Amino acid sequence: MSYADFLGMTVREATPGRTVVSLRITPDGLNMHGTAHGGLLFSLADEAFAVISNLEARAVAVETHLSFFRPAREGDELIAVATPERVGRTLATYRVEVRRGGEGEVLALFLGTVARREPSRPSE
Amino acid sequence: MSYADFLGMTVREATPGRTVVSLRITPDGLNMHGTAHGGLLFSLADEAFAVISNLEARAVAVETHLSFFRPAREGDELIAVATPERVGRTLATYRVEVRRGGEGEVLALFLGTVARREPSRPSE
Amino acid sequence: MSYADFLGMTVREATPGRTVVSLRITPDGLNMHGTAHGGLLFSLADEAFAVISNLEARAVAVETHLSFFRPAREGDELIAVATPERVGRTLATYRVEVRRGGEGEVLALFLGTVARREPSRPSE
Amino acid sequence: MSYADFLGMTVREATPGRTVVSLRITPDGLNMHGTAHGGLLFSLADEAFAVISNLEARAVAVETHLSFFRPAREGDELIAVATPERVGRTLATYRVEVRRGGEGEVLALFLGTVARREPSRPSE
Repeated sequence: MSYADFLGMTVREATPGRTVVSLRITPDGLNMHGTAHGGLLFSLADEAFAVISNLEARAVAVETHLSFFRPAREGDELIAVATPERVGRTLATYRVEVRRGGEGEVLALFLGTVARREPSRPSE
Repeated sequence: MSYADFLGMTVREATPGRTVVSLRITPDGLNMHGTAHGGLLFSLADEAFAVISNLEARAVAVETHLSFFRPAREGDELIAVATPERVGRTLATYRVEVRRGGEGEVLALFLGTVARREPSRPSE
Repeated sequence: MSYADFLGMTVREATPGRTVVSLRITPDGLNMHGTAHGGLLFSLADEAFAVISNLEARAVAVETHLSFFRPAREGDELIAVATPERVGRTLATYRVEVRRGGEGEVLALFLGTVARREPSRPSE
Repeated sequence: MSYADFLGMTVREATPGRTVVSLRITPDGLNMHGTAHGGLLFSLADEAFAVISNLEARAVAVETHLSFFRPAREGDELIAVATPERVGRTLATYRVEVRRGGEGEVLALFLGTVARREPSRPSE
């Protein structure tokens, strides 16, 4: 099972202009304060970042920044929406918002940069 | 089970000057490229950051930065070592290095800032 | 003369929802490669961030992230547009885009977080 | 005059293992609160980052993170010390501490990543 499956993520949408991944918070996702672990929010955002950045290239993550705005709780459905900030030939930067539900508050804001290699060919 | 337990983390050392958390990478920690998912490396670093920052205060994460240097693979033991960069009254910043084994290469470098509230009393 | 004046910045717009600061690149703003120094782009973005974050509070910068997308050149007019990502009681995060001209390409993307104290009173 | 000269910077040391740049804060470096502008601290750190990263390659900045720890004041001498975190073939990450004086407190902590091209030849 992949890490994304292990944490219960579902890819809802995967296009170069917008990629959406979700998960529902279970007791296994909580930290010492009883709220969602920062690592869980990051993992969801990072999966959306990995999916979107690999759609048209072979992408390797260089760095990421994450701001935490509000806590998430058990039972919440988290939705990560990734969009491109700038896609260049060798580098690309994406923004990912992690929301509580589809139209809910932004809980965390992720920004990530990848190094891009040429796209995989269909025959590979 | 907490998120840290769910991912198989062990706190090896927990002092305000140095906190160490480890895990061994299983198939459940891999991404689409067959290497450790960025979210797993972040989660380990973030746990070390959470533990060290909560030893002497009630800390809430504000933001984190993560640089990825080298890939990690199934079977690798990851060691996250957190140390303080600057601890102020209301804000504190910590550095976490994620290494392959105790003396191994640095795979990822994490920097995180928390907002601090006064420490919990023992009677609480 | 303040630093913003020293570097030739002009505040074009200053509201809590959108603040705009500009400057034109002179030979004094160039680096060893003959393009605008990263410090100049940052300084412009940071000024927009300082202005917007101090309109309704006394704000102190905690951390900033800057991604460089494209080089800027002598003679270019740089426009920094700051908007709020999230404004809380004690912390606030802003996004600043640095563009070449008003509708031009995004040259750099800045994200910054402040700690907020209560607003200064008029009588202070 | 280059930007670094315009702001009064002096390169004290320039080796791949450690690069040091300094400046003294004048009234032209102050912000609306009467302390050193964040852009000035960043510019100094960014110059040390540019110098160290270009010693053995042609380097282009990708992204930077800056944490502000303590304010700097008029008359303070700022010393930026850059050291490598990790130097790879196509990417490199450096740490820069900005201190008040040579052995003084850390005022700001900078982390930056460059994309590296092959080094310039002497004949170029």
